[in-house]
Amino acid sequence: MKKVIWSALSAAEQQAVLLRPAMAASESITDTVAHIIEQVTTEGDAALKKLSAQFDKVELNDIRLSSQAMKEACDSIPAPLKTALREAFRNIRSFHAAQVSRPLSVETQPGVVCEMHSRAIEAVGLYIPGGSAPLPSTVLMLGVPSEIAGCKRRVLVSPPPIAPEIVFAASLCGIDEIYQVGGAQAVAALAFGTESVPKVDKIFGPGNSFVTEAKRQVSQAIGGASIDMPAGPSEVMVIADARANADFIAADLLSQAEHGPDSQVVVVTPSDKLADEVNQALTRQVAKLSRADIAEKALENSIAIVCQDMAEAVVISNIYGPEHLIVQTKNPRQYLNDIQHAGSVFLGDWTPESVGDYASGTNHVLPTYGYVRTYSSLSLMDFCKRFTVQELSADGLSGLAPVVTAIADAEGLDAHANAVHVRTQALEGSK
Amino acid sequence: MKKVIWSALSAAEQQAVLLRPAMAASESITDTVAHIIEQVTTEGDAALKKLSAQFDKVELNDIRLSSQAMKEACDSIPAPLKTALREAFRNIRSFHAAQVSRPLSVETQPGVVCEMHSRAIEAVGLYIPGGSAPLPSTVLMLGVPSEIAGCKRRVLVSPPPIAPEIVFAASLCGIDEIYQVGGAQAVAALAFGTESVPKVDKIFGPGNSFVTEAKRQVSQAIGGASIDMPAGPSEVMVIADARANADFIAADLLSQAEHGPDSQVVVVTPSDKLADEVNQALTRQVAKLSRADIAEKALENSIAIVCQDMAEAVVISNIYGPEHLIVQTKNPRQYLNDIQHAGSVFLGDWTPESVGDYASGTNHVLPTYGYVRTYSSLSLMDFCKRFTVQELSADGLSGLAPVVTAIADAEGLDAHANAVHVRTQALEGSK
Repeated sequence: MKKVIWSALSAAEQQAVLLRPAMAASESITDTVAHIIEQVTTEGDAALKKLSAQFDKVELNDIRLSSQAMKEACDSIPAPLKTALREAFRNIRSFHAAQVSRPLSVETQPGVVCEMHSRAIEAVGLYIPGGSAPLPSTVLMLGVPSEIAGCKRRVLVSPPPIAPEIVFAASLCGIDEIYQVGGAQAVAALAFGTESVPKVDKIFGPGNSFVTEAKRQVSQAIGGASIDMPAGPSEVMVIADARANADFIAADLLSQAEHGPDSQVVVVTPSDKLADEVNQALTRQVAKLSRADIAEKALENSIAIVCQDMAEAVVISNIYGPEHLIVQTKNPRQYLNDIQHAGSVFLGDWTPESVGDYASGTNHVLPTYGYVRTYSSLSLMDFCKRFTVQELSADGLSGLAPVVTAIADAEGLDAHANAVHVRTQALEGSK
Repeated sequence: MKKVIWSALSAAEQQAVLLRPAMAASESITDTVAHIIEQVTTEGDAALKKLSAQFDKVELNDIRLSSQAMKEACDSIPAPLKTALREAFRNIRSFHAAQVSRPLSVETQPGVVCEMHSRAIEAVGLYIPGGSAPLPSTVLMLGVPSEIAGCKRRVLVSPPPIAPEIVFAASLCGIDEIYQVGGAQAVAALAFGTESVPKVDKIFGPGNSFVTEAKRQVSQAIGGASIDMPAGPSEVMVIADARANADFIAADLLSQAEHGPDSQVVVVTPSDKLADEVNQALTRQVAKLSRADIAEKALENSIAIVCQDMAEAVVISNIYGPEHLIVQTKNPRQYLNDIQHAGSVFLGDWTPESVGDYASGTNHVLPTYGYVRTYSSLSLMDFCKRFTVQELSADGLSGLAPVVTAIADAEGLDAHANAVHVRTQALEGSK
C-alpha cells in the first residue's frame, strides 16, 4: 500500500491520488453486448440456450428452475447457514420495512388538496451474479425490499448452474420464479422478454462488465427497462484517528480488496504511525486469505493518506465520495453531520463493512465510482414510484382561478386559462 | 378526434390505439448534439458564444446575467403577475416542504443500529426552455424543491434573451446565478463546466429534442452529470362517466394539445354520447385559441375510446400510463386505489390540469411516454440523495458475528469473516 502525505502534495497531485481508474466500456464489450441483445430480441429462448452453452458451458433444457429443483436446493442447505440467512433476512426486513412511506396530504390553500401516493413497480428483474462464489446475500438485498414494496412479479436470474444458497435465499423472500440464465443475455431477456422469461419494468443487481453494459444499453432503449443505478468497481475508505486498531483497519481493507483486483481501497488518518502499522498488518493478514492473489492485486492500487487532522480526513472523504466509509475514531458520530458523500457509513471500532454486506439490516447495493454525489443507497423507494394527486372543491377552484389564469396569460397559453374559465363560468351560471 | 369502441377492437388493435408515436432521436440530432458537447468541452465559453449566435441569433457579451439586469427584469413585472407567481410559489413550497423526510433509525437487533440520512445534492442545474412563451412556472417547479433541499449551488440556464418573468420567478426561489445560454450547449456547460458556467452534479428541466438528447448523452458520459428523468411528448388522459361535462373535458384536452403538435390527448368514457359531445365541444373551443394551429395538429392524433364501464376505463388508463390523468366522475376518489400508473392525477370536475401545471402545489415535471411505470413525479427527493449508517456496540457485534461469518464462509469470502474475527478475538482478549 502506497503512503502519501496530503499536505506535501500539490492540488493536482491530490486530485490524482483520489482519481479512480478510467472505466469506459471498451468498444469490444459495447459491440458484443449489443449483438447479444439483438440475438435475444430476435431469437428469444433459442438465443438464451445458445449463449448459455457458449459462455457458461451449460446445456439448458428448462430455462426456468422447476419447483422440484427449488425444493431439493433448499433441502440441501446445512441448518447453520439456514439460520444465519434467516437472521440476516430478519434484520434486512426490519430496516427496509421501516422505510414504508405514508401517503402525504396537504391542503395548500382552502379547498386545494395535494397528495403523494406510492405504488410498487409491477414487475422487477433481480440479477444475481454467479461465478466463483454464490451470493445469497445479494438475493436478500433485492428480494426483501421487492417483497415489502409488493412488486407483483419478481423474476430472479442467475448464471447456470444456480447455487442452492441462492435458491434458498430466494425462497426466504418468497420468490418462486427463477431462471437459469446470466450475463448480458439475461439482462436482455428481462428487458424485452422471451418465450420463457417475462419482460420486467426495472432491473436490479450487480454483475460483471457485460452485465453492467447490458443494463446500460437496455436502460437507453425505447421499450427496454429501467435500472437501479450505474455500476463501478467496489470501494472502501477508512478514516481513523491515532488510537484506531491497525488490525481492524487492515481486515476491513482486505474485505474490500478480496472482491476483485479492481477494488478501490483507501485509508486516511492523521497518524503517520497508524498508516505504517496498517501496512504491516495488511502484509500479515493477506497471506492467510484464500483469495490472497485477488486481494494483493487490489492492494497494488490502494493508498494510505496521512492528513492534518480528522476534520481534513472528512474533507478528503467528501472529495472522494466512497461507496463504503468506515469511521474508526473515538467519537465517530461527531463527524456524521459533515459527511456529505458516501454510500453507506460504518461508525466505530465494532462496525466492520462485512456486517453491512450481510446482516446489519442496511442494503449492500450502493452507488460507487463517485455516483454517491447524486445516487442513493438502494432502498424500498427504488422498488416503488410515486405520483401526485390533487382535488379541488368548487370553492377551491374559485380561489385559485386568478392565480392560474394570470400565469397562463403570462405564458401565452389560452387553453390553460380556458380550462379554468369554462368551470368558473359554469359555477357562476349555477348560482 | 377519432372515436373507437374498445370492445370492437382486437387485442392488437387495442394495443395499436394506445401506442405512442416512435420517439428515437434521429441520427442527425444525436450527431449534432455530440458535436455541440465536444465544442463546449474543448472551447468552453467561446463555444457557448458562438453557438448562441448561431442558434439563438444573440451576440452575448456576458454569459451570466448581472445583478443589475436581474433587478431591472424583476421591476418590470406587472404587480398582478407578481402576486400570482407569489401565490403559486407559496402553494408549491407548502406541498414540497411537507416532503422533507426525517432521518430513520432502527435497532434491528440488540446493539445493531441502522439509519438512513438524507443530504442535498450539492450543485444542481435548472434548465428553463425559452421559445415562444416564457415558462416562469417551470422555474418554480425546479427552484422551490432545490431551495427546500438546501442545494448549495443552483445554476439556472435559459436561452437568450431571458424573459423577465423567468428572472422574477428565480428571484422568488432565491436563485441569483442565471446564465443566458440554452440548447444542447447549455446542458454541456452544466455537465462539464466552462470558464463562466460551473459544473453541476445533476441537471433538471424540460427542453426540446436537442436538450433532451444532450441530457441523455451527458448522463451516460463518465464525468458528466445525472439527470432528472427521461423525457417525451406531454400527454393527458381524461376518464369520465356519462354525467361529466363535455366542455370541461374539451377544455382540458385542449390545454394539453396547445403545448405542441406532438402532444398526446386521449379521452376514455363508457358514454358514446359524451364522446361525441366532447368532439363537438373541441371544434367549438379550438377555433378561439391563439395557438389553434398547434392544438389542431395535436388533435389529429387524439382519440376518444368508448369502453364498457368506469372499471374498464381505469384498466385502459393503467395500460397507457398517462403523464396527466384527469378523473371526471361522480365519486372520483373511489378509483384512486386502482390507479397504478400515472404521473399526476386530477380528481373531479373542479380540478383541471392547469391547476397542477401552475399553482395547486404539485410539481408539473412528470414522467411521460410510459415512464410512469418506473419513474416518479419530480419531488423533493430528486434534489437529495440518501445514505445508510450503521453503528454496532461491542455486544452488538458479538451477537451478529455468527450470522456474518456463516454467510461469509458460504460465499467463500475469508476476509469478510476475518474482519469480524479480529474484533471478536480482541474482545475476548480484553475480558
